[in-house]
Amino acid sequence: MSEVAILAANRAFYEAFAANDERAMAAIWSSGDCACTHPGRPVLVGRDRVMRSWREILDAGAPSIRVEEARPLVLSRDVAMVVCVERLGQVALAATNVFVLERGTWKIAHHHAGQMRSGAARESRGALN
Amino acid sequence: MSEVAILAANRAFYEAFAANDERAMAAIWSSGDCACTHPGRPVLVGRDRVMRSWREILDAGAPSIRVEEARPLVLSRDVAMVVCVERLGQVALAATNVFVLERGTWKIAHHHAGQMRSGAARESRGALN
Repeated sequence: MSEVAILAANRAFYEAFAANDERAMAAIWSSGDCACTHPGRPVLVGRDRVMRSWREILDAGAPSIRVEEARPLVLSRDVAMVVCVERLGQVALAATNVFVLERGTWKIAHHHAGQMRSGAARESRGALN
Repeated sequence: MSEVAILAANRAFYEAFAANDERAMAAIWSSGDCACTHPGRPVLVGRDRVMRSWREILDAGAPSIRVEEARPLVLSRDVAMVVCVERLGQVALAATNVFVLERGTWKIAHHHAGQMRSGAARESRGALN
């Protein structure tokens, strides 16, 4: 069931982040076209730039994130995305994670996270149900 | 050439927005799974919720947006995305727009925009080149 596999890939992404594991992070990103927009930061395009940004973030020590409201959307046989809410203490971020199927494994090809205004996370739960 | 068609679909999205055209906005969104995260706002999942949010935004009068640095990424034969910078006066937003090919036409299936911190748009140009 692909939704289960897609949610597992989403969890693996956040687990690599939580573990500050650069090798795991490199392994779960697509070897093809990648992009990444960290909160408030520039749009990065290309695997090299994206992985460099992750090395910098993980070297500095990743903050603790709780992931909520993860919702998989299957876009085609080999592309899917997960929208979710990332909680860092009192701050909530809306996240988009795009996955592509590479040789039978879902790899992340794009991550975009941005801060939600206060109260939006509660509205989000309402909007998702 | 699919990148040209994908960038045209991205332009059509912003043109519908600029024209406050609810009918055009409804026509360019996918009839399948959709999601949308407006700046700072909750994650919306489902075409009905997404289109309702656009009606509210367009009814209120859409702000003027200049789109810069649009970069298409082809993820598969029938899914692509565009990352770009949206400028609203002095404010710059990072945007992710995901498109799916429906009966030969690229339709938008996800929009996520969030504010960049001051100066990030300039860095973005550097990161894209």
